[in-house]
Amino acid sequence: MADEAPFQLLHSEVIQYIYKSAEGETESGRNVTKLENIGFRVGQGLIERMTKDTARFKDELDIMKFICKDFWTCVFKKQIDNLRTNHQGIYVLQDNKFGLLSHLSVGKQYLEHAPKYLAFTCGLVRGALSNLGVKSIVTSEVSVMPSCKFQVMIQKA
Amino acid sequence: MADEAPFQLLHSEVIQYIYKSAEGETESGRNVTKLENIGFRVGQGLIERMTKDTARFKDELDIMKFICKDFWTCVFKKQIDNLRTNHQGIYVLQDNKFGLLSHLSVGKQYLEHAPKYLAFTCGLVRGALSNLGVKSIVTSEVSVMPSCKFQVMIQKA
Repeated sequence: MADEAPFQLLHSEVIQYIYKSAEGETESGRNVTKLENIGFRVGQGLIERMTKDTARFKDELDIMKFICKDFWTCVFKKQIDNLRTNHQGIYVLQDNKFGLLSHLSVGKQYLEHAPKYLAFTCGLVRGALSNLGVKSIVTSEVSVMPSCKFQVMIQKA
Repeated sequence: MADEAPFQLLHSEVIQYIYKSAEGETESGRNVTKLENIGFRVGQGLIERMTKDTARFKDELDIMKFICKDFWTCVFKKQIDNLRTNHQGIYVLQDNKFGLLSHLSVGKQYLEHAPKYLAFTCGLVRGALSNLGVKSIVTSEVSVMPSCKFQVMIQKA
């Protein structure tokens, strides 16, 4: 029995709840925003607990490595598989088997539903970074499920 | 870093979201019902995954023991501390340090807020039992935080 099952199932139900309670509304973008906001606050709370006894981070890259390893493992029970950066404030985090997509069928058929399963996590990363003093824009991309990429664009003050 | 933190934080945010989006509405009972329903579906999904390879349960008490041990540990990383029954369809599950209350202050001050932190779990238990073919009514009670009791009343067909 996977440890992350309660979290995964609750995450799914939150999506269902938000989409269902907004039925009739035309703008589905609002639902994505709501999920992103919930993720943001979970990310803030989580990083606060995780870093309260850790040493200060050296730099931005050091923070990103923490997100890819410790933070990701805490939430998804695995690390990010690949981290890339252009060294100018853009980071791409690739997860080859993303937990919150793993219950969806692998075919292209459900690809259009992927964004709603990623919105929470975009917010999660943005919230975590925000609490570490790093403002960012986080977007996601899926080409072949259940692998996905999160792109983090650091916003310089 | 506690394993259950992502789940706890998401649970808190779901409560905030539901209460906030219902602001202005007079009936707060509806929020409790919404949380209970979300819990119900998570409970159904979880028990399905957990029992797919287990042996058939002997009887009702056997099912309740599974809920108190395996199921509780999966969600809350600890077992129920005490299980009582009148052997006539009523079970009382006591958790002396319930995870979803542990972030609330221990004083009596916040006691009135306890029900909203327990509604999801009432649904969770009811959903799990329902998927095992046991219809029930689940209520909760807090006298001293973070300890609480869940009362399960089995509904005979």
